[in-house]
Amino acid sequence: MKNILLASTSSMFGEAYLAYLMPELKSFFEGCTEIVFIPFARPGGISHDEYTEKVKAAFHPLNIKVRGLHTFTDPTEAIQQAEGFFTGGGNTFLLVQQLHQLNLMEELKGAVEGGTPYLGTSAGSNIGGINMKNTNDMPIVYPPDFTTMGLIPFNINAHYLDPDPNSTHNGETRETRIKEFHVFNDIPVVGLREGSWIRVKAEEVTTEGSRSSRIFLADTEPYELEPGSVLRF
Amino acid sequence: MKNILLASTSSMFGEAYLAYLMPELKSFFEGCTEIVFIPFARPGGISHDEYTEKVKAAFHPLNIKVRGLHTFTDPTEAIQQAEGFFTGGGNTFLLVQQLHQLNLMEELKGAVEGGTPYLGTSAGSNIGGINMKNTNDMPIVYPPDFTTMGLIPFNINAHYLDPDPNSTHNGETRETRIKEFHVFNDIPVVGLREGSWIRVKAEEVTTEGSRSSRIFLADTEPYELEPGSVLRF
Repeated sequence: MKNILLASTSSMFGEAYLAYLMPELKSFFEGCTEIVFIPFARPGGISHDEYTEKVKAAFHPLNIKVRGLHTFTDPTEAIQQAEGFFTGGGNTFLLVQQLHQLNLMEELKGAVEGGTPYLGTSAGSNIGGINMKNTNDMPIVYPPDFTTMGLIPFNINAHYLDPDPNSTHNGETRETRIKEFHVFNDIPVVGLREGSWIRVKAEEVTTEGSRSSRIFLADTEPYELEPGSVLRF
Repeated sequence: MKNILLASTSSMFGEAYLAYLMPELKSFFEGCTEIVFIPFARPGGISHDEYTEKVKAAFHPLNIKVRGLHTFTDPTEAIQQAEGFFTGGGNTFLLVQQLHQLNLMEELKGAVEGGTPYLGTSAGSNIGGINMKNTNDMPIVYPPDFTTMGLIPFNINAHYLDPDPNSTHNGETRETRIKEFHVFNDIPVVGLREGSWIRVKAEEVTTEGSRSSRIFLADTEPYELEPGSVLRF
């Protein structure tokens, strides 16, 4: 049974890392004594070890041990045997490049579809979509492929931001960028605001959290979905 | 003699398309009766024809005709014979994908290095850099290569934005994204604010316009350069 949580962000403004998700994670990872952390997105260029330490500290109150995927001699076997996964945020191009280069994207998808709980935040949520074409990140490395796990039948735009009505900046708004995507692609996109997440239990996919989500379909006006709504496209 | 102008944005807030650049463009394209417009970045998904019409109207007061590159039977020959170029903004991934697929990136580079004047705005400026790894755009298509023309020995971050001290948003700032770039790349990056541009005359490269530029080098604190400064790395 698929058991997946894809969050827009790891942290809310002014709060501790993962704090707002803690009540969820307790039940989400119930029965897990250790999870495998995938640190490849390296926010701000932090090292794999540093990033893993930060996650270890956050999971300590839940009595769940954390081991970085980069520390296993055989990462494929580590994925197959894991009790649970967490992929943290950072740069999506880097994360996707690493997973493809190490031939781990398909392996991870297989384990999650087989029922191993998967938590993603930000870049770690983007890779739950069909491809990474709705990331906000800078293309600092060239991945061999933009395809991601396709755990859900749509893409996520993490950290979704509404246009600022007072802005005098001429760069594209998030909505314009997603509209440009839909000129060339017909994959639905869920604009996931900070504080919200996608929850998958078996075949049911819902939006959850504190804020509504903005749904973008090709050739359709975007619309809002309240937390608790089922996502069916 | 190289003659290049790479602007952060096509337009300033509340102003007509290209209006703030008009005084520059008059002398920049002096002697040109017709320029070739490269519409491939398609902002907001606008068609090549619509985009070209918009540019035609903007160049009309300068008495310069504009023809879209997409209307030539032989675009390679069109590039070789052009009196001047303008590449407009939009999506950099799309622009780069098109130029590589049509085998025009090297052709365009050759013509500009041979002395044909080249104006770029936003995405059209990004392709003047070494590669497109500092674009802010969404990866809505997968280019066969991130390499661009390398008309200048650095990359541009167009529409550069300072961090908003009042933001409660958790997405990465532009500065953080460029720092992540420098974990994996040592190419200098010029954060080009709206209203500023890079000017190349023969071998001299300067920053121009109304605002200072922010310079990012690997392993160095970013610093500001006033308009009129020579860029030497």
